[in-house]
Amino acid sequence: MEYRKIKDELQDDHVVASDIESVKGKSHTVASSNIAMPTLGVGSGERVNWKRKGVVTCALTILTSSQAILIVWSKRAGKYEYSVTTANFLVETLKCALSFLALTRIWKNEGVTDDNRLSTTYEEVKVFPIPAALYLFKNLLQYYIFAYVDAPGYQILKNLNIISTGVLYRIILKKKLSEIQWAGFILLCCGCTTAQLNSNSDRVLQTSLPGWIMAIVMALLSGFAGVYTEAIIKKRPSRNINVQNFWLYVFGMAFNAIAIVIQDFDAVANKGFFHGYSFITVLMILNHALSGIAVSMVMKYADNIVKVYSTSVAMLLTAVVSVFLFNFHLSLAFFLGSTVVSVSVYLHSAGKLR
Amino acid sequence: MEYRKIKDELQDDHVVASDIESVKGKSHTVASSNIAMPTLGVGSGERVNWKRKGVVTCALTILTSSQAILIVWSKRAGKYEYSVTTANFLVETLKCALSFLALTRIWKNEGVTDDNRLSTTYEEVKVFPIPAALYLFKNLLQYYIFAYVDAPGYQILKNLNIISTGVLYRIILKKKLSEIQWAGFILLCCGCTTAQLNSNSDRVLQTSLPGWIMAIVMALLSGFAGVYTEAIIKKRPSRNINVQNFWLYVFGMAFNAIAIVIQDFDAVANKGFFHGYSFITVLMILNHALSGIAVSMVMKYADNIVKVYSTSVAMLLTAVVSVFLFNFHLSLAFFLGSTVVSVSVYLHSAGKLR
Repeated sequence: MEYRKIKDELQDDHVVASDIESVKGKSHTVASSNIAMPTLGVGSGERVNWKRKGVVTCALTILTSSQAILIVWSKRAGKYEYSVTTANFLVETLKCALSFLALTRIWKNEGVTDDNRLSTTYEEVKVFPIPAALYLFKNLLQYYIFAYVDAPGYQILKNLNIISTGVLYRIILKKKLSEIQWAGFILLCCGCTTAQLNSNSDRVLQTSLPGWIMAIVMALLSGFAGVYTEAIIKKRPSRNINVQNFWLYVFGMAFNAIAIVIQDFDAVANKGFFHGYSFITVLMILNHALSGIAVSMVMKYADNIVKVYSTSVAMLLTAVVSVFLFNFHLSLAFFLGSTVVSVSVYLHSAGKLR
Repeated sequence: MEYRKIKDELQDDHVVASDIESVKGKSHTVASSNIAMPTLGVGSGERVNWKRKGVVTCALTILTSSQAILIVWSKRAGKYEYSVTTANFLVETLKCALSFLALTRIWKNEGVTDDNRLSTTYEEVKVFPIPAALYLFKNLLQYYIFAYVDAPGYQILKNLNIISTGVLYRIILKKKLSEIQWAGFILLCCGCTTAQLNSNSDRVLQTSLPGWIMAIVMALLSGFAGVYTEAIIKKRPSRNINVQNFWLYVFGMAFNAIAIVIQDFDAVANKGFFHGYSFITVLMILNHALSGIAVSMVMKYADNIVKVYSTSVAMLLTAVVSVFLFNFHLSLAFFLGSTVVSVSVYLHSAGKLR
């Protein structure tokens, strides 16, 4: 399996670590100029790293919140008329185009270097299709799980992603969380689920064994795709993130094209590719593309754990914003869940390994 | 106010601490023989302390669980026919009698000493009526709060006790919890509330301002009574706990006698003191008496925080036992709340100040 290979490549932590060491200075300079900051000395590198980590994390949180709000808005405006697979394809295409655009700017300012050239080797690119393939497989499974679980139940089971990401992050990336941070991670999962509780939530406990297995497999696929993407991006720290994104998204386009053929071929052939698209659909595609890029940035400059926290906090923010936008009523469960998530965020930072 | 006095007495932590120091060896010997253990050297004192703390905490947990189960059982058997104030009076009387019985045994084995003599001074006994008075006041308020909140809503608001106990423990006893332990304490409150959620819980959010104020006042009274009891019992560490209990319960009897007159005078006068008593009522009184004594022991050998954890875990145990006894169905909220409480217990122990 391809997975084994990258795992073996990451097997020796020391090799990766020394790899990172050797390019540290360089990485800082390149990355700093990437986000149009003056090239700073290595001394303030730590501060720049933290700032960048903060910026991309905030961007992801805000984009994810607005994404959920757009979904609510589009549901209020009527049902989804467009095919989801074509929209996903366009998201990948847009991300690919934006990465290329960023690269052309960088080439103009800095010239073409080994780290920002677009051309790649088989050795570098061979693992890039894996996350896209995993997501495709997960999305296909999603069609079958609804035979066993209803949509609100599926929303609740999706919180298993949090646990699977944490476990795979530990196993595959071999990064350690402290016991307090693990406690925080379990609480994050409980808090998010609690915040989503409603009077029908208990039905999810009646899920049959095949439903549970599919939910767990989907959580593992999703967690695995995330952790694998981080492994790919972090493997070459000095490589420009836009190049890495470009290749990831090229394979994303390819696998989403396959999804169109498998799931929506008839609809697209009969009604056309853009059937049912509206202004809000365009906004959603734009938003998905930007949050996709933000996820990659978080993987590069932070990690999957930060990503999970960021999107979980976004879920809570969405609910609060919805109170004002859509007159949502917040439940007691939401307040309790939000408090648990807040404490969990605190524990993640307080429990840092020294 | 009387409360100011004991607060002033506790103002100087060093005085209390050195007080405890000076009687340490003595206290160990007396306390060890109290629970019929061989008198051990000071070296193993720490271990004896832990063992004793563990035993009283487990006893409290088991007694509290069985208490809740008896309540469910008696509700299934029919409504409360007896007057609650007379039962409370009998509980205090029984506790008083049991403490006296324990003392006579100790006098026989060890002879009468300064620490285990029943006679007391005005200086020692003057603060003993306060907890009983606070509980009486809280119980009287309980009759009025139901004008603003329904019974299940009141069960949820009672979790405010956890927070009030923590805050008053910090302010009045001046004992420090670490930040991680505070996080655990907030989680304990959230977890217990989550575990109790049902489809009607959201109604509690519609509680009017007077309802909230009364709930908060009741939480403060209850937390205050608990913390005050600990202050009284810990003030003289070498004093035999049975003597301290005896005097606490004497005032408990007196204040419950007042409650009978205020609330149930007509019923008792017309139908008699024991009207509506059944076998299960007797069991409940016995159980309440034993758990009351266990609470005192926890206050003596552990503290209010341990008491709150112990009774919270008991609540969860009750629900699990009820699945087998009464065919209860556990909700998703219960599983989430229990997980949060478990993590909270872990954090309380992991976050110990060094």
